Amino acid sequence: MDQIRNGWFSEINELWPGQCLSLQVEEVLLNEKSDFQDVLVLQTKHHGRALILDGIIQCTEHDEFSYQEMISFLPLCAHPAPSRVLIVGGGDGGVARECHKHPLVEHVVQVEIDSKVVDASRRFLPFMAQGFDSDKLTLTIGDGFKYMEEHKNEFDVIITDSSDPIGPAVNLFTESYFRLLKGALKRGGVICSQNGTVWTELDKVKETLDHCRKHFPVVKYAVTSVPTYPSGQIGFIVAAAGKADPAVPKFRVGEAEVEEMGLRYYNGEVHSAAFVLPNFVKKVLYD
Amino acid sequence: MDQIRNGWFSEINELWPGQCLSLQVEEVLLNEKSDFQDVLVLQTKHHGRALILDGIIQCTEHDEFSYQEMISFLPLCAHPAPSRVLIVGGGDGGVARECHKHPLVEHVVQVEIDSKVVDASRRFLPFMAQGFDSDKLTLTIGDGFKYMEEHKNEFDVIITDSSDPIGPAVNLFTESYFRLLKGALKRGGVICSQNGTVWTELDKVKETLDHCRKHFPVVKYAVTSVPTYPSGQIGFIVAAAGKADPAVPKFRVGEAEVEEMGLRYYNGEVHSAAFVLPNFVKKVLYD
Repeated sequence: MDQIRNGWFSEINELWPGQCLSLQVEEVLLNEKSDFQDVLVLQTKHHGRALILDGIIQCTEHDEFSYQEMISFLPLCAHPAPSRVLIVGGGDGGVARECHKHPLVEHVVQVEIDSKVVDASRRFLPFMAQGFDSDKLTLTIGDGFKYMEEHKNEFDVIITDSSDPIGPAVNLFTESYFRLLKGALKRGGVICSQNGTVWTELDKVKETLDHCRKHFPVVKYAVTSVPTYPSGQIGFIVAAAGKADPAVPKFRVGEAEVEEMGLRYYNGEVHSAAFVLPNFVKKVLYD
Repeated sequence: MDQIRNGWFSEINELWPGQCLSLQVEEVLLNEKSDFQDVLVLQTKHHGRALILDGIIQCTEHDEFSYQEMISFLPLCAHPAPSRVLIVGGGDGGVARECHKHPLVEHVVQVEIDSKVVDASRRFLPFMAQGFDSDKLTLTIGDGFKYMEEHKNEFDVIITDSSDPIGPAVNLFTESYFRLLKGALKRGGVICSQNGTVWTELDKVKETLDHCRKHFPVVKYAVTSVPTYPSGQIGFIVAAAGKADPAVPKFRVGEAEVEEMGLRYYNGEVHSAAFVLPNFVKKVLYD
């Protein structure tokens, strides 16, 4: 199968062997190489606009809200006062858009390595790039590793919104990355990192959790449904530097807050349910 | 895109426009026409064996347990004493396999319209066809509609394990079908029906729920993750003829029961979490 053929984009990758999602394409809006990766933006026929990095779907207009709301609100609401937030990655702006909504968030620093992704989003993906307009946000183009080495003990919440563990994001799944996260957090801080899917890479998910456990006392795994990601589901490591269980929200999002913040996916019940795992996953991750 | 090309099977269908899952194929084991539909069985490269009816994936060895356990245990555990069970459809045997495991189930009647599906499963899908060996099971080849017209007031639980609402299953999503289900149930009975995905057919899901609401006082919707179904998720209508909330399990499956019954997906916490819906779904289905 080729990447684009007969008007369909196909996402073939050895990270999920033998399965492949295809999306029907109306127009190729951008196709360029950055210093780090291939950047492709498509106008699809039924899923709105799509951002694709190194051949892997990062987000589509159709379902990105599930991912962006969950990777943001899970850690934000697991913290009683998430005043200062760091986003590593998230170059499309979607996570910044969500963090801006939380009433207790005062300042968001975002460190994205690839300015071309930010540019592509600003030009073609305004539904996510609106996050860059937040008056709470300071956006820096640079290396998240380096940034955290120079900023210790500063953040209540750190969200790692990365691509998969090949290409520029490979270091964001290592033990030394979790050590850095721990160091950049304030006391009682909470982190959340994208961490693949249990359906095709359960061993890899477990390995990353074990790296995280070396530096955090409470490490949990949560999932959400994203149809255009491999297997239609993605998971997050949510870990706390203190003793509080991140599966229990400290800031409750009920019906009024859902309306106020315009949340399409996340609410307080969704928070807790996201941490409930099927037996075959529980067994591997928690036994 | 063609159905099988260059060693990949592709599932194109207007029910989920503009998106298509492909599975890599090792061997075509069966490809025949029954009186009702095209029956295809594939040996895939990474997802075990797959059953495909009229070009739509019904189950793969890789992930069928999520679907079969959930469509069975959600209604069985929502009932305090599910002694007599009716399965409409389920020709692969997977639901019979799961119903057999529940200690309070005494007798299961299954009515499947297409004997060729049962034959295909017996020959090529032993991991599901083992359900047909259950000593609790009476298997009948015939029309579920007709069967229920002739069997009133007989079942504690009725599970409709159908294909999608095109082809032979189209009648299983109508209001008159829910009337028949209600009639065949005993007092306090519970039903569960496959009901598509909220990601591509939320209006259709809502319509079917509304049909069901005309005959059942308590109607709920639950979801589970099945990577090889469109959007990676499928939903179920779970409705009760009495007043009890089917989202609250009456028979609790804890760690001991999980071990005993060999459940890979379902447990008591998964039961309740399956009914927790994101805001965009809640709004349409429950407002």
